[in-house]
Amino acid sequence: MAPSEPGHIVKSYEQELNQLRTLMARMGGLVENQTAHAIAAILDHNAESAQMAMEQDPEVDALEREVEARAIKLLALRAPMAQDLREIVSALKVTSDLERIGDYAANVAKRSLRLGPASLDISLGGLRNMSRLVQESLRLAIDALGQNDKDKAIDVWRSDKAVDEMYTAMFRELVTYMMEDPRNIGACTHLLFIAKNLERIGDHATNIAERVHYAVTGEMLPFGRPRGGSSTTPEGAAS
Amino acid sequence: MAPSEPGHIVKSYEQELNQLRTLMARMGGLVENQTAHAIAAILDHNAESAQMAMEQDPEVDALEREVEARAIKLLALRAPMAQDLREIVSALKVTSDLERIGDYAANVAKRSLRLGPASLDISLGGLRNMSRLVQESLRLAIDALGQNDKDKAIDVWRSDKAVDEMYTAMFRELVTYMMEDPRNIGACTHLLFIAKNLERIGDHATNIAERVHYAVTGEMLPFGRPRGGSSTTPEGAAS
Repeated sequence: MAPSEPGHIVKSYEQELNQLRTLMARMGGLVENQTAHAIAAILDHNAESAQMAMEQDPEVDALEREVEARAIKLLALRAPMAQDLREIVSALKVTSDLERIGDYAANVAKRSLRLGPASLDISLGGLRNMSRLVQESLRLAIDALGQNDKDKAIDVWRSDKAVDEMYTAMFRELVTYMMEDPRNIGACTHLLFIAKNLERIGDHATNIAERVHYAVTGEMLPFGRPRGGSSTTPEGAAS
Repeated sequence: MAPSEPGHIVKSYEQELNQLRTLMARMGGLVENQTAHAIAAILDHNAESAQMAMEQDPEVDALEREVEARAIKLLALRAPMAQDLREIVSALKVTSDLERIGDYAANVAKRSLRLGPASLDISLGGLRNMSRLVQESLRLAIDALGQNDKDKAIDVWRSDKAVDEMYTAMFRELVTYMMEDPRNIGACTHLLFIAKNLERIGDHATNIAERVHYAVTGEMLPFGRPRGGSSTTPEGAAS
Protein backbone atom coordinates (compact mmCIF):
# COMPACT_ATOMS: atom_id res chain seq x y z
CA MET A 1 0.00 0.00 0.00
CA ALA A 2 3.06 2.28 0.32
CA PRO A 3 3.37 4.90 -2.45
CA SER A 4 6.67 3.29 -3.44
CA GLU A 5 4.79 0.25 -4.75
CA PRO A 6 2.59 1.62 -7.53
CA GLY A 7 2.60 -1.71 -9.42
CA HIS A 8 1.18 -3.46 -6.39
CA ILE A 9 -1.55 -0.86 -5.98
CA VAL A 10 -2.58 -1.10 -9.61
CA LYS A 11 -2.67 -4.88 -9.53
CA SER A 12 -4.74 -4.92 -6.39
CA TYR A 13 -7.22 -2.42 -7.83
CA GLU A 14 -7.66 -4.58 -10.91
CA GLN A 15 -8.03 -7.64 -8.72
CA GLU A 16 -10.81 -5.94 -6.79
CA LEU A 17 -12.56 -4.89 -9.99
CA ASN A 18 -12.25 -8.44 -11.29
CA GLN A 19 -13.68 -9.80 -8.05
CA LEU A 20 -16.67 -7.54 -8.57
CA ARG A 21 -17.02 -8.85 -12.14
CA THR A 22 -16.81 -12.44 -10.90
CA LEU A 23 -19.54 -11.79 -8.34
CA MET A 24 -21.75 -10.27 -11.05
CA ALA A 25 -21.12 -13.29 -13.27
CA ARG A 26 -22.05 -15.61 -10.40
CA MET A 27 -25.22 -13.65 -9.72
CA GLY A 28 -26.07 -13.69 -13.44
CA GLY A 29 -25.46 -17.42 -13.71
CA LEU A 30 -27.53 -18.13 -10.64
CA VAL A 31 -30.48 -16.09 -11.90
CA GLU A 32 -30.25 -17.76 -15.32
CA ASN A 33 -30.33 -21.16 -13.63
CA GLN A 34 -33.21 -20.11 -11.41
CA THR A 35 -35.19 -19.00 -14.47
CA ALA A 36 -34.46 -22.30 -16.23
CA HIS A 37 -35.74 -24.22 -13.19
CA ALA A 38 -38.86 -22.06 -12.99
CA ILE A 39 -39.61 -22.70 -16.67
CA ALA A 40 -39.09 -26.47 -16.27
CA ALA A 41 -41.44 -26.29 -13.29
CA ILE A 42 -44.31 -25.04 -15.47
CA LEU A 43 -43.64 -26.71 -18.81
CA ASP A 44 -42.64 -30.14 -17.46
CA HIS A 45 -44.76 -29.99 -14.27
CA ASN A 46 -41.54 -30.59 -12.39
CA ALA A 47 -42.06 -29.90 -8.68
CA GLU A 48 -38.41 -30.52 -7.86
CA SER A 49 -37.35 -27.77 -10.27
CA ALA A 50 -39.91 -25.46 -8.66
CA GLN A 51 -38.40 -26.15 -5.26
CA MET A 52 -34.90 -25.41 -6.56
CA ALA A 53 -35.94 -22.12 -8.15
CA MET A 54 -37.52 -21.00 -4.89
CA GLU A 55 -34.58 -22.05 -2.76
CA GLN A 56 -32.10 -20.04 -4.84
CA ASP A 57 -33.77 -16.74 -4.03
CA PRO A 58 -31.99 -15.93 -0.73
CA GLU A 59 -28.61 -16.59 -2.36
CA VAL A 60 -29.42 -14.08 -5.12
CA ASP A 61 -30.40 -11.49 -2.48
CA ALA A 62 -27.17 -12.12 -0.56
CA LEU A 63 -25.12 -11.69 -3.74
CA GLU A 64 -26.82 -8.36 -4.45
CA ARG A 65 -25.76 -7.12 -1.03
CA GLU A 66 -22.22 -8.40 -1.50
CA VAL A 67 -21.85 -6.67 -4.88
CA GLU A 68 -23.05 -3.45 -3.31
CA ALA A 69 -20.66 -3.70 -0.36
CA ARG A 70 -17.73 -4.32 -2.69
CA ALA A 71 -18.76 -1.55 -5.07
CA ILE A 72 -18.90 0.91 -2.17
CA LYS A 73 -15.48 -0.22 -0.98
CA LEU A 74 -14.04 0.25 -4.48
CA LEU A 75 -15.61 3.71 -4.79
CA ALA A 76 -14.35 4.76 -1.35
CA LEU A 77 -10.80 3.46 -1.55
CA ARG A 78 -9.94 3.48 -5.24
CA ALA A 79 -11.73 6.52 -6.71
CA PRO A 80 -12.22 4.80 -10.09
CA MET A 81 -12.67 6.97 -13.19
CA ALA A 82 -14.32 6.95 -16.60
CA GLN A 83 -15.22 3.47 -17.89
CA ASP A 84 -14.39 1.75 -14.56
CA LEU A 85 -16.64 4.16 -12.70
CA ARG A 86 -19.46 3.64 -15.21
CA GLU A 87 -19.00 -0.12 -14.90
CA ILE A 88 -19.26 -0.01 -11.09
CA VAL A 89 -22.33 2.24 -11.16
CA SER A 90 -23.88 -0.05 -13.77
CA ALA A 91 -23.13 -3.07 -11.58
CA LEU A 92 -25.10 -1.43 -8.78
CA LYS A 93 -28.07 -0.91 -11.09
CA VAL A 94 -27.81 -4.29 -12.82
CA THR A 95 -27.96 -6.17 -9.51
CA SER A 96 -31.41 -4.61 -8.95
CA ASP A 97 -32.51 -6.08 -12.29
CA LEU A 98 -30.98 -9.47 -11.54
CA GLU A 99 -32.61 -9.53 -8.12
CA ARG A 100 -36.00 -8.74 -9.67
CA ILE A 101 -35.52 -11.50 -12.29
CA GLY A 102 -34.79 -13.92 -9.44
CA ASP A 103 -37.99 -12.81 -7.68
CA TYR A 104 -40.06 -13.31 -10.83
CA ALA A 105 -38.53 -16.75 -11.39
CA ALA A 106 -39.27 -17.77 -7.79
CA ASN A 107 -42.85 -16.54 -8.19
CA VAL A 108 -43.30 -18.50 -11.44
CA ALA A 109 -42.02 -21.59 -9.63
CA LYS A 110 -44.38 -21.03 -6.70
CA ARG A 111 -47.37 -20.60 -8.98
CA SER A 112 -46.46 -23.74 -10.96
CA LEU A 113 -47.11 -25.74 -7.77
CA ARG A 114 -50.63 -24.29 -7.46
CA LEU A 115 -51.72 -24.76 -11.06
CA GLY A 116 -53.54 -28.00 -10.30
CA PRO A 117 -54.59 -30.75 -12.69
CA ALA A 118 -57.00 -28.51 -14.67
CA SER A 119 -54.02 -26.77 -16.22
CA LEU A 120 -53.11 -29.97 -18.03
CA ASP A 121 -55.95 -29.36 -20.47
CA ILE A 122 -54.61 -25.95 -21.43
CA SER A 123 -52.21 -25.75 -24.33
CA LEU A 124 -48.83 -24.59 -23.12
CA GLY A 125 -47.50 -24.01 -26.65
CA GLY A 126 -47.55 -20.21 -26.38
CA LEU A 127 -45.87 -20.32 -23.00
CA ARG A 128 -43.22 -22.69 -24.32
CA ASN A 129 -42.29 -20.34 -27.18
CA MET A 130 -42.28 -17.33 -24.91
CA SER A 131 -40.12 -19.13 -22.33
CA ARG A 132 -37.60 -20.10 -24.98
CA LEU A 133 -37.28 -16.51 -26.22
CA VAL A 134 -37.02 -15.03 -22.70
CA GLN A 135 -34.36 -17.55 -21.69
CA GLU A 136 -32.38 -16.81 -24.84
CA SER A 137 -32.67 -13.09 -24.21
CA LEU A 138 -31.53 -13.47 -20.60
CA ARG A 139 -28.60 -15.69 -21.59
CA LEU A 140 -27.49 -13.13 -24.17
CA ALA A 141 -27.85 -10.24 -21.70
CA ILE A 142 -25.72 -12.04 -19.12
CA ASP A 143 -23.13 -12.89 -21.78
CA ALA A 144 -23.07 -9.24 -22.84
CA LEU A 145 -22.58 -8.28 -19.20
CA GLY A 146 -19.74 -10.73 -18.63
CA GLN A 147 -17.96 -9.79 -21.84
CA ASN A 148 -18.78 -6.06 -21.90
CA ASP A 149 -20.15 -6.76 -25.39
CA LYS A 150 -22.22 -3.91 -26.76
CA ASP A 151 -23.30 -5.76 -29.92
CA LYS A 152 -24.87 -8.58 -27.92
CA ALA A 153 -26.50 -5.90 -25.77
CA ILE A 154 -28.12 -4.38 -28.86
CA ASP A 155 -29.39 -7.85 -29.93
CA VAL A 156 -31.16 -8.27 -26.57
CA TRP A 157 -32.58 -4.79 -26.76
CA ARG A 158 -34.07 -5.59 -30.19
CA SER A 159 -35.66 -8.87 -29.09
CA ASP A 160 -37.88 -7.26 -26.42
CA LYS A 161 -40.55 -6.47 -29.00
CA ALA A 162 -41.08 -10.15 -29.88
CA VAL A 163 -41.49 -11.07 -26.20
CA ASP A 164 -44.10 -8.32 -25.76
CA GLU A 165 -46.03 -9.58 -28.79
CA MET A 166 -46.02 -13.16 -27.50
CA TYR A 167 -47.27 -11.97 -24.14
CA THR A 168 -50.14 -10.06 -25.71
CA ALA A 169 -51.16 -13.15 -27.70
CA MET A 170 -51.01 -15.34 -24.56
CA PHE A 171 -53.10 -12.84 -22.61
CA ARG A 172 -55.86 -13.04 -25.22
CA GLU A 173 -55.66 -16.84 -25.39
CA LEU A 174 -55.95 -17.24 -21.61
CA VAL A 175 -58.93 -14.89 -21.33
CA THR A 176 -60.66 -16.94 -24.04
CA TYR A 177 -60.02 -20.16 -22.10
CA MET A 178 -61.57 -18.62 -19.01
CA MET A 179 -64.65 -17.46 -20.89
CA GLU A 180 -65.14 -20.87 -22.49
CA ASP A 181 -65.10 -22.76 -19.21
CA PRO A 182 -65.18 -21.12 -15.76
CA ARG A 183 -63.42 -24.19 -14.33
CA ASN A 184 -60.30 -22.89 -16.08
CA ILE A 185 -60.36 -19.58 -14.19
CA GLY A 186 -58.15 -20.63 -11.26
CA ALA A 187 -55.38 -22.11 -13.41
CA CYS A 188 -55.62 -19.41 -16.08
CA THR A 189 -55.24 -16.64 -13.53
CA HIS A 190 -51.98 -18.18 -12.41
CA LEU A 191 -50.92 -18.68 -16.02
CA LEU A 192 -51.69 -15.01 -16.72
CA PHE A 193 -49.31 -13.97 -13.96
CA ILE A 194 -46.74 -16.55 -15.05
CA ALA A 195 -46.81 -15.11 -18.57
CA LYS A 196 -46.59 -11.59 -17.15
CA ASN A 197 -43.61 -12.58 -15.00
CA LEU A 198 -41.82 -14.05 -18.01
CA GLU A 199 -42.49 -10.86 -19.95
CA ARG A 200 -41.04 -8.88 -17.01
CA ILE A 201 -37.94 -11.13 -16.97
CA GLY A 202 -37.45 -10.25 -20.65
CA ASP A 203 -37.89 -6.58 -19.80
CA HIS A 204 -35.23 -6.70 -17.09
CA ALA A 205 -32.88 -8.55 -19.47
CA THR A 206 -33.36 -5.56 -21.78
CA ASN A 207 -32.56 -3.18 -18.91
CA ILE A 208 -29.33 -5.09 -18.34
CA ALA A 209 -28.50 -4.82 -22.03
CA GLU A 210 -29.08 -1.06 -21.91
CA ARG A 211 -26.75 -0.83 -18.90
CA VAL A 212 -24.01 -2.83 -20.60
CA HIS A 213 -24.26 -0.61 -23.65
CA TYR A 214 -23.93 2.47 -21.45
CA ALA A 215 -21.05 1.10 -19.37
CA VAL A 216 -19.07 0.21 -22.49
CA THR A 217 -19.81 3.22 -24.69
CA GLY A 218 -20.87 5.95 -22.26
CA GLU A 219 -23.94 6.35 -24.49
CA MET A 220 -27.50 5.59 -23.41
CA LEU A 221 -29.64 3.67 -25.89
CA PRO A 222 -32.70 5.72 -26.94
CA PHE A 223 -35.62 5.90 -24.51
CA GLY A 224 -38.10 4.29 -26.87
CA ARG A 225 -36.99 0.68 -27.01
CA PRO A 226 -38.60 -1.36 -29.78
CA ARG A 227 -41.88 -2.53 -28.28
CA GLY A 228 -44.50 -4.99 -29.35
CA GLY A 229 -48.11 -5.17 -28.31
CA SER A 230 -48.30 -2.84 -25.41
CA SER A 231 -48.76 0.47 -27.11
CA THR A 232 -49.55 -0.34 -30.70
CA THR A 233 -52.45 -2.78 -30.59
CA PRO A 234 -55.92 -2.64 -29.05
CA GLU A 235 -54.76 -5.36 -26.65
CA GLY A 236 -52.29 -2.82 -25.31
CA ALA A 237 -53.67 -2.94 -21.78
CA ALA A 238 -52.48 -6.52 -21.58
CA SER A 239 -49.05 -5.17 -20.73
CA MET B 1 -11.45 26.06 -7.32
CA ALA B 2 -7.84 26.92 -6.35
CA PRO B 3 -6.53 25.04 -3.28
CA SER B 4 -6.31 28.39 -1.49
CA GLU B 5 -10.11 28.50 -1.34
CA PRO B 6 -11.08 25.43 0.68
CA GLY B 7 -14.32 27.09 1.88
CA HIS B 8 -15.45 27.51 -1.69
CA ILE B 9 -14.67 23.90 -2.56
CA VAL B 10 -16.55 22.56 0.46
CA LYS B 11 -19.56 24.73 -0.24
CA SER B 12 -19.66 23.67 -3.86
CA TYR B 13 -19.51 19.98 -2.90
CA GLU B 14 -22.42 20.45 -0.51
CA GLN B 15 -24.31 22.36 -3.17
CA GLU B 16 -23.85 19.49 -5.58
CA LEU B 17 -25.00 16.97 -2.99
CA ASN B 18 -28.02 19.16 -2.24
CA GLN B 19 -28.82 19.39 -5.95
CA LEU B 20 -28.84 15.60 -6.04
CA ARG B 21 -31.19 15.55 -3.04
CA THR B 22 -33.47 18.10 -4.71
CA LEU B 23 -33.62 15.99 -7.86
CA MET B 24 -34.49 12.91 -5.78
CA ALA B 25 -37.22 14.88 -3.99
CA ARG B 26 -38.61 16.03 -7.34
CA MET B 27 -38.59 12.48 -8.67
CA GLY B 28 -40.27 11.24 -5.47
CA GLY B 29 -42.93 13.96 -5.62
CA LEU B 30 -43.60 13.28 -9.27
CA VAL B 31 -44.04 9.54 -8.72
CA GLU B 32 -46.30 10.17 -5.72
CA ASN B 33 -48.44 12.46 -7.86
CA GLN B 34 -48.48 9.95 -10.70
CA THR B 35 -49.66 7.23 -8.30
CA ALA B 36 -52.40 9.53 -6.94
CA HIS B 37 -53.61 10.20 -10.51
CA ALA B 38 -53.56 6.49 -11.34
CA ILE B 39 -55.64 5.70 -8.26
CA ALA B 40 -58.14 8.47 -9.06
CA ALA B 41 -58.34 7.03 -12.57
CA ILE B 42 -59.62 3.68 -11.25
CA LEU B 43 -61.63 4.68 -8.19
CA ASP B 44 -63.31 7.77 -9.68
CA HIS B 45 -63.33 6.53 -13.30
CA ASN B 46 -61.45 9.70 -14.13
CA ALA B 47 -60.01 9.47 -17.65
CA GLU B 48 -58.26 12.83 -17.34
CA SER B 49 -56.30 11.57 -14.30
CA ALA B 50 -55.39 8.44 -16.26
CA GLN B 51 -54.02 10.58 -19.05
CA MET B 52 -51.96 12.65 -16.61
CA ALA B 53 -50.49 9.56 -14.92
CA MET B 54 -49.42 8.18 -18.30
CA GLU B 55 -47.97 11.46 -19.52
CA GLN B 56 -45.71 11.84 -16.47
CA ASP B 57 -43.81 8.64 -17.22
CA PRO B 58 -41.17 10.05 -19.61
CA GLU B 59 -40.35 12.83 -17.11
CA VAL B 60 -39.72 10.22 -14.39
CA ASP B 61 -37.41 8.32 -16.75
CA ALA B 62 -35.54 11.50 -17.61
CA LEU B 63 -35.08 12.33 -13.91
CA GLU B 64 -33.66 8.86 -13.27
CA ARG B 65 -31.03 9.48 -15.92
CA GLU B 66 -30.26 12.94 -14.56
CA VAL B 67 -29.79 11.63 -11.01
CA GLU B 68 -27.45 9.00 -12.35
CA ALA B 69 -25.40 11.48 -14.38
CA ARG B 70 -25.03 13.76 -11.36
CA ALA B 71 -24.20 10.89 -9.02
CA ILE B 72 -21.44 9.75 -11.38
CA LYS B 73 -20.10 13.30 -11.57
CA LEU B 74 -20.05 13.56 -7.77
CA LEU B 75 -18.31 10.21 -7.44
CA ALA B 76 -15.72 11.08 -10.07
CA LEU B 77 -14.88 14.60 -8.97
CA ARG B 78 -15.58 14.67 -5.24
CA ALA B 79 -14.64 11.22 -3.94
CA PRO B 80 -17.33 11.31 -1.22
CA MET B 81 -16.85 9.16 1.88
CA ALA B 82 -18.87 7.33 4.55
CA GLN B 83 -22.48 8.54 4.88
CA ASP B 84 -22.29 10.77 1.78
CA LEU B 85 -21.04 7.85 -0.30
CA ARG B 86 -23.78 5.58 1.05
CA GLU B 87 -26.35 8.26 0.30
CA ILE B 88 -25.19 8.62 -3.31
CA VAL B 89 -25.13 4.85 -3.87
CA SER B 90 -28.59 4.61 -2.29
CA ALA B 91 -29.82 7.39 -4.58
CA LEU B 92 -28.73 5.30 -7.57
CA LYS B 93 -30.66 2.30 -6.26
CA VAL B 94 -33.71 4.29 -5.11
CA THR B 95 -34.19 5.84 -8.55
CA SER B 96 -34.66 2.30 -9.93
CA ASP B 97 -37.47 1.78 -7.40
CA LEU B 98 -39.04 5.17 -8.16
CA GLU B 99 -38.87 4.51 -11.88
CA ARG B 100 -40.60 1.14 -11.40
CA ILE B 101 -43.32 2.76 -9.23
CA GLY B 102 -43.89 5.26 -12.04
CA ASP B 103 -44.20 2.39 -14.54
CA TYR B 104 -46.73 0.57 -12.35
CA ALA B 105 -48.74 3.77 -11.88
CA ALA B 106 -48.79 4.39 -15.63
CA ASN B 107 -49.89 0.79 -16.21
CA VAL B 108 -52.71 1.12 -13.63
CA ALA B 109 -53.83 4.29 -15.42
CA LYS B 110 -53.73 2.60 -18.83
CA ARG B 111 -55.76 -0.36 -17.58
CA SER B 112 -58.33 1.94 -15.95
CA LEU B 113 -59.22 3.16 -19.45
CA ARG B 114 -59.89 -0.41 -20.63
CA LEU B 115 -62.01 -1.54 -17.71
CA GLY B 116 -65.26 -0.84 -19.52
CA PRO B 117 -68.75 -0.41 -18.09
CA ALA B 118 -68.94 -3.95 -16.62
CA SER B 119 -66.47 -2.93 -13.94
CA LEU B 120 -69.05 -0.55 -12.49
CA ASP B 121 -70.92 -3.53 -11.01
CA ILE B 122 -67.84 -4.73 -9.13
CA SER B 123 -67.30 -3.44 -5.61
CA LEU B 124 -64.17 -1.34 -5.47
CA GLY B 125 -64.12 -1.25 -1.63
CA GLY B 126 -61.11 -3.56 -1.31
CA LEU B 127 -59.21 -1.64 -3.96
CA ARG B 128 -60.04 1.65 -2.25
CA ASN B 129 -58.60 0.47 1.10
CA MET B 130 -55.54 -0.97 -0.54
CA SER B 131 -54.95 2.21 -2.55
CA ARG B 132 -55.17 4.34 0.59
CA LEU B 133 -52.61 2.20 2.41
CA VAL B 134 -50.21 2.06 -0.54
CA GLN B 135 -50.40 5.82 -1.04
CA GLU B 136 -49.75 6.41 2.66
CA SER B 137 -46.82 4.02 2.57
CA LEU B 138 -45.34 5.72 -0.50
CA ARG B 139 -45.79 9.19 1.02
CA LEU B 140 -44.02 8.08 4.18
CA ALA B 141 -41.19 6.43 2.22
CA ILE B 142 -40.62 9.60 0.21
CA ASP B 143 -40.71 11.70 3.39
CA ALA B 144 -38.19 9.36 4.98
CA LEU B 145 -36.01 9.75 1.89
CA GLY B 146 -36.21 13.55 1.88
CA GLN B 147 -35.52 13.83 5.60
CA ASN B 148 -33.09 10.90 5.99
CA ASP B 149 -35.49 9.71 8.70
CA LYS B 150 -34.82 6.14 9.78
CA ASP B 151 -37.87 5.91 12.09
CA LYS B 152 -40.27 6.73 9.25
CA ALA B 153 -38.38 4.19 7.16
CA ILE B 154 -39.07 1.50 9.77
CA ASP B 155 -42.80 2.44 9.80
CA VAL B 156 -43.00 1.87 6.03
CA TRP B 157 -41.14 -1.40 6.31
CA ARG B 158 -43.66 -2.62 8.90
CA SER B 159 -46.73 -1.67 6.83
CA ASP B 160 -45.82 -3.94 3.91
CA LYS B 161 -47.48 -6.92 5.58
CA ALA B 162 -50.91 -5.23 5.64
CA VAL B 163 -50.67 -4.39 1.91
CA ASP B 164 -49.81 -8.02 1.11
CA GLU B 165 -52.81 -9.24 3.11
CA MET B 166 -55.17 -6.84 1.34
CA TYR B 167 -53.86 -7.98 -2.01
CA THR B 168 -54.43 -11.64 -1.16
CA ALA B 169 -58.02 -10.86 -0.10
CA MET B 170 -58.64 -8.92 -3.34
CA PHE B 171 -57.21 -11.73 -5.44
CA ARG B 172 -59.70 -14.17 -3.92
CA GLU B 173 -62.60 -11.74 -4.30
CA LEU B 174 -61.86 -11.11 -7.97
CA VAL B 175 -61.57 -14.81 -8.82
CA THR B 176 -64.97 -15.32 -7.16
CA TYR B 177 -66.51 -12.55 -9.30
CA MET B 178 -65.14 -14.20 -12.42
CA MET B 179 -66.53 -17.60 -11.49
CA GLU B 180 -69.97 -16.16 -10.69
CA ASP B 181 -70.36 -14.46 -14.04
CA PRO B 182 -68.03 -14.97 -17.01
CA ARG B 183 -69.01 -11.51 -18.28
CA ASN B 184 -66.85 -10.16 -15.43
CA ILE B 185 -63.71 -11.91 -16.70
CA GLY B 186 -62.37 -9.10 -18.88
CA ALA B 187 -62.71 -6.38 -16.24
CA CYS B 188 -61.60 -8.65 -13.39
CA THR B 189 -58.42 -9.63 -15.21
CA HIS B 190 -57.49 -5.97 -15.47
CA LEU B 191 -58.46 -5.43 -11.82
CA LEU B 192 -56.23 -8.38 -10.82
CA PHE B 193 -53.25 -6.73 -12.49
CA ILE B 194 -54.21 -3.33 -11.07
CA ALA B 195 -54.25 -4.82 -7.55
CA LYS B 196 -50.94 -6.57 -8.26
CA ASN B 197 -49.41 -3.30 -9.48
CA LEU B 198 -50.54 -1.51 -6.32
CA GLU B 199 -49.04 -4.27 -4.21
CA ARG B 200 -45.80 -3.89 -6.17
CA ILE B 201 -45.82 -0.11 -5.58
CA GLY B 202 -46.07 -0.85 -1.84
CA ASP B 203 -43.19 -3.29 -2.18
CA HIS B 204 -40.98 -0.72 -3.89
CA ALA B 205 -41.88 1.85 -1.20
CA THR B 206 -40.56 -0.72 1.28
CA ASN B 207 -37.37 -1.09 -0.76
CA ILE B 208 -36.91 2.69 -0.58
CA ALA B 209 -37.44 2.57 3.20
CA GLU B 210 -34.78 -0.15 3.50
CA ARG B 211 -32.40 2.01 1.47
CA VAL B 212 -33.00 5.08 3.63
CA HIS B 213 -32.37 3.04 6.74
CA TYR B 214 -29.11 1.78 5.29
CA ALA B 215 -27.93 5.18 4.05
CA VAL B 216 -28.55 6.77 7.46
CA THR B 217 -27.33 4.01 9.76
CA GLY B 218 -24.99 1.93 7.61
CA GLU B 219 -27.04 -1.09 8.75
CA MET B 220 -29.23 -3.22 6.49
CA LEU B 221 -32.69 -4.10 7.80
CA PRO B 222 -33.07 -7.89 8.16
CA PHE B 223 -33.74 -9.91 4.99
CA GLY B 224 -37.10 -11.22 6.13
CA ARG B 225 -39.34 -8.18 6.01
CA PRO B 226 -42.69 -8.65 7.77
CA ARG B 227 -44.91 -10.23 5.15
CA GLY B 228 -48.59 -10.95 4.89
CA GLY B 229 -50.33 -13.46 2.69
CA SER B 230 -47.71 -14.56 0.25
CA SER B 231 -46.01 -17.32 2.16
CA THR B 232 -48.29 -18.08 5.08
CA THR B 233 -51.72 -18.76 3.59
CA PRO B 234 -52.99 -21.23 1.03
CA GLU B 235 -53.62 -18.22 -1.23
CA GLY B 236 -49.90 -17.64 -1.13
CA ALA B 237 -49.52 -18.06 -4.86
CA ALA B 238 -51.60 -14.93 -5.26
CA SER B 239 -48.45 -12.93 -4.65
